[in-house]
Amino acid sequence: MTSSPTDDSPDAARPLSPPPAVVLELIQQQRDSYLNRLFELLRIPSVSADPAFSQDVYRAAKWMATTFEGMGLKTQFLKTSTHPIVLAESPHVPDAPTVLVYGHFDVQPADPLDEWISPPYDPTIRDGNIYARGATDDKGQMLTHVFSTEAWLKSHGKLPLNLKFLIEGEEESGSVALAELMAGKYNDQLGCPVEEKLACDVVVISDSSQFGPGYPAITYGLRGIISFELTLFGPKQDLHSGTFGGAVANPVNALMRVMAAFQDDYGKVLIPGFYDDVQELSDTERQQWQALPFSDDDFMHQVGVPATFGEPGYSTIERCWSRPTMDINGISGGYQGEGGKTIVPAKASAKFTCRLVPRQDPNKIAAAVKQLVQVRVPQMFRYQLKVGHAAAGIVVPLDSPFMLAAADAIEVGFGKPPVLIRSGGSIPIVSQFKDRLGADTLLLGWGQNDDNTHSPNEKFSVEDFHRGIVSSAALWQALADHAARH
Amino acid sequence: MTSSPTDDSPDAARPLSPPPAVVLELIQQQRDSYLNRLFELLRIPSVSADPAFSQDVYRAAKWMATTFEGMGLKTQFLKTSTHPIVLAESPHVPDAPTVLVYGHFDVQPADPLDEWISPPYDPTIRDGNIYARGATDDKGQMLTHVFSTEAWLKSHGKLPLNLKFLIEGEEESGSVALAELMAGKYNDQLGCPVEEKLACDVVVISDSSQFGPGYPAITYGLRGIISFELTLFGPKQDLHSGTFGGAVANPVNALMRVMAAFQDDYGKVLIPGFYDDVQELSDTERQQWQALPFSDDDFMHQVGVPATFGEPGYSTIERCWSRPTMDINGISGGYQGEGGKTIVPAKASAKFTCRLVPRQDPNKIAAAVKQLVQVRVPQMFRYQLKVGHAAAGIVVPLDSPFMLAAADAIEVGFGKPPVLIRSGGSIPIVSQFKDRLGADTLLLGWGQNDDNTHSPNEKFSVEDFHRGIVSSAALWQALADHAARH
Repeated sequence: MTSSPTDDSPDAARPLSPPPAVVLELIQQQRDSYLNRLFELLRIPSVSADPAFSQDVYRAAKWMATTFEGMGLKTQFLKTSTHPIVLAESPHVPDAPTVLVYGHFDVQPADPLDEWISPPYDPTIRDGNIYARGATDDKGQMLTHVFSTEAWLKSHGKLPLNLKFLIEGEEESGSVALAELMAGKYNDQLGCPVEEKLACDVVVISDSSQFGPGYPAITYGLRGIISFELTLFGPKQDLHSGTFGGAVANPVNALMRVMAAFQDDYGKVLIPGFYDDVQELSDTERQQWQALPFSDDDFMHQVGVPATFGEPGYSTIERCWSRPTMDINGISGGYQGEGGKTIVPAKASAKFTCRLVPRQDPNKIAAAVKQLVQVRVPQMFRYQLKVGHAAAGIVVPLDSPFMLAAADAIEVGFGKPPVLIRSGGSIPIVSQFKDRLGADTLLLGWGQNDDNTHSPNEKFSVEDFHRGIVSSAALWQALADHAARH
Repeated sequence: MTSSPTDDSPDAARPLSPPPAVVLELIQQQRDSYLNRLFELLRIPSVSADPAFSQDVYRAAKWMATTFEGMGLKTQFLKTSTHPIVLAESPHVPDAPTVLVYGHFDVQPADPLDEWISPPYDPTIRDGNIYARGATDDKGQMLTHVFSTEAWLKSHGKLPLNLKFLIEGEEESGSVALAELMAGKYNDQLGCPVEEKLACDVVVISDSSQFGPGYPAITYGLRGIISFELTLFGPKQDLHSGTFGGAVANPVNALMRVMAAFQDDYGKVLIPGFYDDVQELSDTERQQWQALPFSDDDFMHQVGVPATFGEPGYSTIERCWSRPTMDINGISGGYQGEGGKTIVPAKASAKFTCRLVPRQDPNKIAAAVKQLVQVRVPQMFRYQLKVGHAAAGIVVPLDSPFMLAAADAIEVGFGKPPVLIRSGGSIPIVSQFKDRLGADTLLLGWGQNDDNTHSPNEKFSVEDFHRGIVSSAALWQALADHAARH
């Protein structure tokens, strides 16, 4: 783990043993076969959000289950209230760690179809990239762990650790069934409590990106999230603003004043107590991030803004990865069509979310928002504040044995050590794994930021796919070795 | 004019002569005939907003022209870029005032059709009311002046003054052709400049309501209006609020802060200089309005709010009729569907209007809004502020001879003197008549507030229709008498 230019202390524990040569040889031999099998899965339009594709989601689940069974894993096909979930377990290895691999076989809708250069469900290789819906998110990345496991079992006869796979079909549309699974609803089908079924030492997810081309990465932190929707109710129906204006309180006017109390012009959030539990970055992290190849100019060009923005005293990366936010995601109220309509609207609403950083308690933030809204909404308005799902921010300790193992494995697969990054996004299942299973998650993204996830012409580099399989094969060895040392 | 309980000074000029008995007798005889002829016009679905009905608007225009010609008026049928305009002039009476009657023969769409008890274009009398689209707005009210004129000419042989009719077919959809007419575009068809064609001493419009049942009214004041649309542009497209939130300025957040600077929680508008030219009510007006039968409880019940609202120190009527406002009519930005979408939106906009009172200059207000927006929008946003059409507020002097004449005429028609009211709404053509023709407008509403204008089951009381015709006949006499005295 030598990503940081300031971290040049010798690591007495290194080097670890690489995976057996037979495993790596088989992976090399199977390159084309792995591609063909990925293509099989990519041809299934498993769009979970659209009921028209529910049979395809089911087919993709069956494809997964058949694949796991063919590898000799103990496989369970969970029927749920929505889409199936597939579970698989490798043969038990005593005195070895247990790793839970999470992934998903469903995909985002492919619209707008006419922007695809090649059809979304007809995978095509151009310029070294696989183009298809789901290529990187998440079929391609998820299968790296499946194929590496198969390679271990086929060539070496056994794994150095215990693997559990939890592959869902609804990640792109709310993970309803997964939430039910975690809540114990399918314990009967599982044959035991879900906590026991999924018990593990660490979780591995490959559903994100490298820092950039040539910069493989481990994402060791995520922001949390809490979402709100505030609606102010005024007159019982839209009123003529000539007849009634000035004598009836306008809920849109009032909403502006309420929401203006949430943030200043410089990006600082004004919710009382919002920053109380926020931990400042360590000098080490700050220095590591400063060493990353990042340009504010490129960032501004990418998003199309004339200036950077955010809390004074922080860099763009620091603002994105380590500072909490309040963003209004949408507003609605009154007449929104062409031209004008002179009304006092009946109601107004704002959907907004706070991104949270580790140690901020979503419940405490929700209470502070409730209090602020109560104080700020003028008395004559009836209002409703909905609090949506919440997830706490996450950081995995940089010195955990799992982190060290992942860094070693990536060096084997990519030929260079990973950079250590965080993400500003939120992956609620990661906090659930922490809360319910007590396990940290390794976020090992094999993709690139420009892979067009959720957009037309989604792609995944053939080379990154192959490196991901090698890194995964090395990861099983490295995790076993590191665990043995502890 | 004895509407005010505090105005008990004897009026030396009164009483004026009523119209000749033969005129009133003919109006009485023709009651059923007038109803039948109104029904003819109501059966034409002259919806100006919907191109599917444009032939019907044309038919209604022809009906008007034929009616005027049948009365012996010099009639012009103007072909315009949109719907026709019908002009008519009575035979010239020397040394008598000239009155311009404005009205419209087009109607609002009848949707939703299934809420009509009887079909909108099949006029039906129930409980003393005529039910049909256009019954009160404006076919019924406009025809009172046509029929009174006809009655004068038929029974008495001549009018006591000069009448000009300007009847348009596009009032419910923007009055495009009327604006063109006023701008001189149809001077060739007119045969003279529009200012000469429409030159008059006073304008009469019956397209509004009495204060309430048993309270005939003259509306002597209107608020003006100026409209704006402010759009803030952020990133070039919606961004993931996890990846980018905190480092990209959110245009919705910023719009809230900008618009919050326009009004305080108590209804006071904070645009700098906004109240500079606002004239406080006279004690007389304030006392007259206090004497009107008005209940805050009824008002709150009508609009469905738990409390009255507005600038401290003013009554509800004062706020509606005599105070300027800033109401946001609609807001838009980001995700507005079900559930949530975690984005930093690309843009945000607010449509808002200020109602203005007499002496406030719309141009000055527009300049102040531009200045406030410029100061308040953070520098990193590109923004667009559109300024829409404007109209100044209007008051007709309470002691003008035209006002006195109208009060007398209403007393003849309704058996009691009118109350003197203002309206919070804006009628842009009234300010244009003032600006271009130098003429004040008498707003003589024969309708009721609950006549369902623009809604299903529009109605007009048979009795109010008849009283309107009598009042109009009396008005021609009273205006001639009052002018003679000056």
